[in-house]
Amino acid sequence: RYCHERNLAVNPQGGNTGLVGGSVPVFDEIILSTALMNQIISFDKVSGILVCQAGCVLERLSEYLEEQGFIMPLDLGAKGSCHIGGNVATNAGGLRLLRYGSLRGTVLGLEVVLADGSALDCLTSLRKDNTGYDLKQLFIGSEGTLGVITAVSILCPQKPKAVNVAFLGCQSFAKVLETFTTCRAMLGEILSAYEFMDEKCMELVETHLKLSSPVADSPFYVLIETSGSNSTHDEEKLNSFLERAMASGLVTDGTVATDEKKIKASQCFLSHKSLCVLWSLRERITEALTHEGYVYKYDISLPLGKLYELVTDMRARLGHTAKNVVGYGHLGDGNLHLNITAESYSHSLLDAIEPFVYEWTARYSGSISAEHGLGFKKRHFIHYSKPRQAVLLMQQFKAMLDPKGILNPYKTLPSAP
Amino acid sequence: RYCHERNLAVNPQGGNTGLVGGSVPVFDEIILSTALMNQIISFDKVSGILVCQAGCVLERLSEYLEEQGFIMPLDLGAKGSCHIGGNVATNAGGLRLLRYGSLRGTVLGLEVVLADGSALDCLTSLRKDNTGYDLKQLFIGSEGTLGVITAVSILCPQKPKAVNVAFLGCQSFAKVLETFTTCRAMLGEILSAYEFMDEKCMELVETHLKLSSPVADSPFYVLIETSGSNSTHDEEKLNSFLERAMASGLVTDGTVATDEKKIKASQCFLSHKSLCVLWSLRERITEALTHEGYVYKYDISLPLGKLYELVTDMRARLGHTAKNVVGYGHLGDGNLHLNITAESYSHSLLDAIEPFVYEWTARYSGSISAEHGLGFKKRHFIHYSKPRQAVLLMQQFKAMLDPKGILNPYKTLPSAP
Repeated sequence: RYCHERNLAVNPQGGNTGLVGGSVPVFDEIILSTALMNQIISFDKVSGILVCQAGCVLERLSEYLEEQGFIMPLDLGAKGSCHIGGNVATNAGGLRLLRYGSLRGTVLGLEVVLADGSALDCLTSLRKDNTGYDLKQLFIGSEGTLGVITAVSILCPQKPKAVNVAFLGCQSFAKVLETFTTCRAMLGEILSAYEFMDEKCMELVETHLKLSSPVADSPFYVLIETSGSNSTHDEEKLNSFLERAMASGLVTDGTVATDEKKIKASQCFLSHKSLCVLWSLRERITEALTHEGYVYKYDISLPLGKLYELVTDMRARLGHTAKNVVGYGHLGDGNLHLNITAESYSHSLLDAIEPFVYEWTARYSGSISAEHGLGFKKRHFIHYSKPRQAVLLMQQFKAMLDPKGILNPYKTLPSAP
Repeated sequence: RYCHERNLAVNPQGGNTGLVGGSVPVFDEIILSTALMNQIISFDKVSGILVCQAGCVLERLSEYLEEQGFIMPLDLGAKGSCHIGGNVATNAGGLRLLRYGSLRGTVLGLEVVLADGSALDCLTSLRKDNTGYDLKQLFIGSEGTLGVITAVSILCPQKPKAVNVAFLGCQSFAKVLETFTTCRAMLGEILSAYEFMDEKCMELVETHLKLSSPVADSPFYVLIETSGSNSTHDEEKLNSFLERAMASGLVTDGTVATDEKKIKASQCFLSHKSLCVLWSLRERITEALTHEGYVYKYDISLPLGKLYELVTDMRARLGHTAKNVVGYGHLGDGNLHLNITAESYSHSLLDAIEPFVYEWTARYSGSISAEHGLGFKKRHFIHYSKPRQAVLLMQQFKAMLDPKGILNPYKTLPSAP
C-alpha cells in the first residue's frame, strides 16, 4: 500500500536462485524479501496438506515433512536456498514432476498481496473447491508481476518406503527414448524420475568436479528413480526391467543404488553405488558448467522425438565458436536443458544462438521456457511460444491487477505496444 | 462474433449432465451445442497426450484410449453422455482424482472462443510451458462464463495392468477414516479410489435398484480400488492390508474383486465378486435417489474429521420432515455428497436446509461446491466459500473478458452490485 500510493516499484525476492533474472531488480525497484516469513502454519497428517509462509526454504520444508512421513511434491537442485514462495511464483518444475505433477495441481491455496497493498486470501486447504474462478492459478508462474505470494497451501505425498536409482548407458538417443517407453510400461506407478545427460555433460562433471562415471563410456546416460511402498516389489520390478533392457541391447551398461542397506548385492546382477552418488552426477551438471566460463542457458520443451536434435543442430551450427554444447534434462517431461559454454560472453556467439534456438523450438511447437519462466532475460521472446492474442490478454490482466505497473516491472511480459 | 455484434446471449451446452444448472438456459439464451465437434485430433503414444474437440463423449474417449493402452485421467458416473469440453469447463472431479489429480494438472492446453468470437489458441501439447501467464486455467472451471472451450489437450495415464476392488463394512465413521490412513500407507502408489457410503445409501440401492449388498450390514461401507502394473504385487499388497484391517477390527466384513480371471479364490481369504458389481453399488446411488421423489443435492468439501458430522447434524435437524438424509462420496479427496430426499419439493424443507448447510460448511472452512460448480443454482452462495475481495476480482475478470455479458449469463457469479 505504501508503495502503491507513492508509485514505488517492488521487486519480490525469495532465494534469488532463478536463472532468467526474474528476482533481480532492473533499475531502482525496492527489493521486497520474503526471507523473514519463514513459519510453518500447519500440517495435517491425515490429508498431507501443508500451509506455510512464502519465505520457507524448500529443503527446510522437506526435512520437516520427512519427520512426519511425507515429502514435498517438488525437488530441485537449488533446494538449499530457494523459497517456496518463489517456487510457486515461477511454477518451478524440477525432479519430481513426472510422478507428482506440477504445482498447478499440488498447490491448493495461496495468500497474495496485490498491487494496491490489499491481501487476497485464497489460502484454502481443500483438495477440491469449485466455487467460482480459480484465482490462485493466475499467480502461480506469474513471477511476482501480478501479486506477491505471502503464504502457500500445498498437498504433500507420503514419503516412499523404498527408493531405488539406476544409472544406465545408452548408445543412441533413439535408445534413450525406447528405454523410456519400456521402463514406463514395466515400472508403471513406481517410476519417479527419468533424467538423461549426454557424454559431454559426463566429461564436465568428471573434469571440473572430479566425479567418476559409474558405467562404461556411452554417448548418453539415463538416470531412473523408483519410489514405492514395498522394497521387495520395487526391486523385482526394477530388476526385471533392467534384465529386459540389457538383454534387448537398449542399455549397454548400468549400476543401481538403493536406500535399503540390507539388500544383498547378489540379488541384483549390477554393481551398487549410493543413491546420492548417482543423483549428484545429474544434479551437479549446472555447477560443473559454471567452471567452463560463460554459460548460455536454455530451458526448452519439445516433443520427445525432437528433443535432442536441437542439441545436434546447435553443435553443428556453432562449430568451434563455442567451447561446449551440452544437453541434459527431464526427459520424462519432454524438457531439455541446452547449455552452451564459452571462455567469456561474446555478443557474436549470442547472435549465432538467438533467435535460431527460439525459431527452431517454435518450428516444432515447443516452449522456449519449460520451467524457468521468462523473467527479465526472455520476456521479449514470448511470441515464439504464445500467439499474439494470448500475449495481449496477458497484458490486459497485468493492467487490471497492477494498473501502475509497480509489481516486478520489466519482467515476464514484453512492454505493451 | 455474430452474437457479440447483436448482443445475443449464448448458453454453451455439452452433455447437459451437470447438477447445478450450469448448462441450462435461464431466459432467452441461444444454446450453443458442442455435440458435432466430436473428433479426436491426435494421440501420441509415447507422451500419452490426447488432443480432441470439445464435444467428444468421455466414454468414447476412454474406449479409444484403452485400445492404445491408456486411460482418461478422469472418470465419472455420467461418462456415457458428458462431453470433455463440459468436463473441463466445470473442472469435473470424479472417481480417479485421488490417483491422477485434478484437470488443472492434467489439461495441458485449450482452444477457447472468446466473447467477441475470436479463437484463443492455447492448445499446446507440452507437459511443461512457463511462457507467461497460464491463461487456460481461467477457463477450467469457469462454466462457460468466460469463453467457450472448443478443443482440449490432456495428459493420459497408462492403462493399469491390474485392477482390484475391495468392498468393506465399517462400524463407525472413525473407523472409515482409520481404514483410509492404514490403506494409504500400505497400498501407497497403487491406491486409485477410496469411496464411502452410509447404510442409508445401501438401503436405497437395495430397495430401488434391487442390488444386493455383498457384505454384512454395517453403518458404513468403503470401496477401495487399486490400479497397478503387476497383479501379483498388487494382490499381495491388498491382501496384507485386508488382513491387517480385519485383524485390528477396522473392518468387520469384506469382499474383493479383480479383473484377472485367473486368480484362484484360495489365494484370498475373502469371497469374490466382479469389479462392476462392486462399483455399481457406489456409482448407482445417484440413480437410486431419483426414485425417492425430490432430491436436494449438496457437494461439499470438508476437513476429513468433520466430513460425516454434517450428515448427522442435518439428519437430527430435519427429523421426519425429510424422507432420507444420506451421505456418500470421494472420501480420499475430502468430498461429501450430501443428499436429502422428500416425496416432492417443499419450500419449507429447503428453508430448513439452506442456508444452514452453507453456514455449517463455512464454519469449518469447507467448500460449498467441491466438484459440481456453482452454475445457476448456487451462484448466490459463493460468499460462504470465498472472501468478498475474491468475488470482486472474479467479477472484474468476467467484465474484462465478456463486457457485454453474453456468455452463459446468470451463472457462476452473483450479479455485480
